[in-house]
Amino acid sequence: MKDDAFEALTVETLPARLSAIPEIATRVGGAPSGWKVREVGDGNLNLVFIVEGAKETVIVKQALPYVRLVGDSWPLPLKRSFFEYHALTRQQARAPGTVPALHYFDETQALIVMEFLSPHIILRRALIEGRQLPKIGRDLGLFMARTLFRGSDLSMKASERKADLALFADNVELCDITENLVFSDPYFEAPMNRHTPGLDGLVKELRADRDLKVAAQRMKHAFATRAETLVHGDLHSGSVMVTDDETKVIDPEFAFYGPMAFDVGMLLANYWMAYFAQRGHEGDESRNAMRAYLLGVVDETWHVFRDEFARLWRTERNGILYQAALYEDQDDGLAAEQALNHVIHDLWTDMLGFAGIEMHRRILGLAHNADFEEIADETLHATCEAAALKFGRHVTVNRNTIQSLAELDALAQALDQRKLS
Amino acid sequence: MKDDAFEALTVETLPARLSAIPEIATRVGGAPSGWKVREVGDGNLNLVFIVEGAKETVIVKQALPYVRLVGDSWPLPLKRSFFEYHALTRQQARAPGTVPALHYFDETQALIVMEFLSPHIILRRALIEGRQLPKIGRDLGLFMARTLFRGSDLSMKASERKADLALFADNVELCDITENLVFSDPYFEAPMNRHTPGLDGLVKELRADRDLKVAAQRMKHAFATRAETLVHGDLHSGSVMVTDDETKVIDPEFAFYGPMAFDVGMLLANYWMAYFAQRGHEGDESRNAMRAYLLGVVDETWHVFRDEFARLWRTERNGILYQAALYEDQDDGLAAEQALNHVIHDLWTDMLGFAGIEMHRRILGLAHNADFEEIADETLHATCEAAALKFGRHVTVNRNTIQSLAELDALAQALDQRKLS
Ligand SMILES: Nc1ncnc2c1ncn2[C@@H]1O[C@H](COP(=O)(O)OP(=O)(O)OP(=O)(O)O)[C@@H](O)[C@H]1O
Ligand SMILES: Nc1ncnc2c1ncn2[C@@H]1O[C@H](COP(=O)(O)OP(=O)(O)OP(=O)(O)O)[C@@H](O)[C@H]1O
Repeated sequence: MKDDAFEALTVETLPARLSAIPEIATRVGGAPSGWKVREVGDGNLNLVFIVEGAKETVIVKQALPYVRLVGDSWPLPLKRSFFEYHALTRQQARAPGTVPALHYFDETQALIVMEFLSPHIILRRALIEGRQLPKIGRDLGLFMARTLFRGSDLSMKASERKADLALFADNVELCDITENLVFSDPYFEAPMNRHTPGLDGLVKELRADRDLKVAAQRMKHAFATRAETLVHGDLHSGSVMVTDDETKVIDPEFAFYGPMAFDVGMLLANYWMAYFAQRGHEGDESRNAMRAYLLGVVDETWHVFRDEFARLWRTERNGILYQAALYEDQDDGLAAEQALNHVIHDLWTDMLGFAGIEMHRRILGLAHNADFEEIADETLHATCEAAALKFGRHVTVNRNTIQSLAELDALAQALDQRKLS
Repeated sequence: MKDDAFEALTVETLPARLSAIPEIATRVGGAPSGWKVREVGDGNLNLVFIVEGAKETVIVKQALPYVRLVGDSWPLPLKRSFFEYHALTRQQARAPGTVPALHYFDETQALIVMEFLSPHIILRRALIEGRQLPKIGRDLGLFMARTLFRGSDLSMKASERKADLALFADNVELCDITENLVFSDPYFEAPMNRHTPGLDGLVKELRADRDLKVAAQRMKHAFATRAETLVHGDLHSGSVMVTDDETKVIDPEFAFYGPMAFDVGMLLANYWMAYFAQRGHEGDESRNAMRAYLLGVVDETWHVFRDEFARLWRTERNGILYQAALYEDQDDGLAAEQALNHVIHDLWTDMLGFAGIEMHRRILGLAHNADFEEIADETLHATCEAAALKFGRHVTVNRNTIQSLAELDALAQALDQRKLS
């Protein structure tokens, strides 16, 4: 299979083609004709198959030379699979156990064979259903601190980091998607945008909001230029698979060297959106416990992230930045602590900036969230989204002066109770 | 010559070897045996020859696999010549006429043949001699605005910029020199450091100064991670050649994608150091006019840079950042102006941060400035340097709150009058 030209798999061709790879044939086990192959329909960009054999079930993920959901008219290079694979290996090394085990990679076929996570479900789905996952705050806080710290100049050898940066700089088409769809399109009448009808007034207001547009472009500037660490690049609740006991991160095809707080902001934004969607999922039964849970998850994620980042700073700061040699001699390490505070302060500010924009693009742009989309009543749908839009505007524009999550809890609660105006 | 293994040129071998390249033989003209070849002794890292033929005089610059001044014990890759050549071509395209014309490049031989600038002299030399060059403020302000703006995401296609970033990311050894010698070594007792004896007390104080050390590492963090534009990377007064009418920039072998304000901070720092050195060059004759001239040059450079940057922002903002589409519709372009103010504010802050550190490393680190080194009287030498160190400390630590150059003129004047304490 290796040297052939790229060919998209189908449910029918998969067993014959995959069984030609001895290590896969052995792993899956049994006669390939007996393998049960199902396509998972819910990815936007790529093909994903579940392949069940006599011994093991595996996931086969294959990129296509275009966006799966759209087709030929939106080409997208196969090499995104290469970046996904290499990001997964680095995440695995930096935060062991947090991503699916990797079984096989074929660059030409843009194909990754990996562990089938089961009975895991997508975190977004779990949150919409009102499930309170007890471990996500801690697990993802640790995941982010470890991958982001250990992929940065705080930890890596400068020459290795620069070589890796050059490698991932070629993931330019996927960065381009983020640059446009996340940071720019929501703020003007871009062709692919859509929004819930009831929001027209607010959308107009936001698109005329100078402070917001400037802030969004400032964050885009940071995204495009600050090559601080290897970020996941698409860390929302649809890229996390969970059980009550386990949390796994998937789908890092947008990975590149970018700002440290990008993943953190995107993830927290998705919790805040889940929060504002509760009202739409309420029905007869109150979702107050879920609301409290989600704000708690935001709080735990941030604090675990921050504390683990600080721990790594104190114990693994072996890179070219803030070197121990400079801080040890004359001041009992207080300078290193002072520097840590500055760095964490910047992470906080950036996190807020990115979070607000993620909330906007999910409501104003092309890619919407099931959290809101599944609210059937249109007025309620718009009401939930309006609260999220206002919250997003506040955190992005005021990122430099917001002091605490408590302050944001209060804002979230107030906005959540408002009527659509 | 092209396919041969690298071999360092000598005054003796140069004519035979260079005349094998038809375009060079023709350009220089006459029998190679008649060429007059001189080595220019004043570079630290590379070989530089002046080759005078019947028709034209050219400069031949060749890298060595080590630092010329030190020898084998300090290896340095030949590829720095590749980066110098490619940086020169980009500077030439972005700010035509500001660098020597390029005649030839041989990657294997790490060799660049370029225009011989004559009667130009090195700017640092001119300033030490008390010459007031009328055009440097304007010329270098424009040079920086144009190269830095046009090499950034404000202007370039994102895919081209990312490819170029990946290319220059391989200039890692030269970045490493800056990261260590500029940002770290001055702030602890690094082996290669030296300083004028009278400064012991102040040096001790600075190396125990927590705010300063944190600030220096914050700037290093920015240097290492913020890939905003192709910077020259070593833009001090020794990398500029001048006549009264012309200003040319040479020697961009440290070029890489870094923070926009790095070049600006380094250049202004060198003017400020020239200012603090005046007292040491005063002798019988007052250098007050030169002092006023130098502060004027700082002022003019910054303002020309800022205004040209703003002009390019308004007329050539064709990149992925702050796109016109976002700003045109609802607010008469006021958002673009607001964003410009933010960007210029950041450039100002970063410039100050980098400037102070450049002043420190030239007094505390390995590479000292002739401006101070040529002050024969040791106490006077230390007095001048002490003023520069204090000034540098102030601008770096207070970069976020300093409002104007007038404020810094006053500080410079006050420090310049002090006794060594
Ligand atoms: N390792 C795995 N184990 C179990 N299920 C998986 C695994 N990887 C992916 N899936 C399933 O396949 C779906 C699509 O996967 P993934 O998100 O990686 O694809 P994609 O096309 O890149 O999607 P996206 O639209 O999020 O970019 C997931 O939502 C999940 O349901
Ligand atoms: N194009 C030129 N025209 C005239 N003289 C030049 C030219 N290029 C270099 N020189 C002379 O050669 C000297 C050394 O050149 P350059 O600074 O490029 O070398 P280097 O070894 O890289 O030095 P550095 O120590 O600054 O890194 C310059 O100071 C200048 O006197």
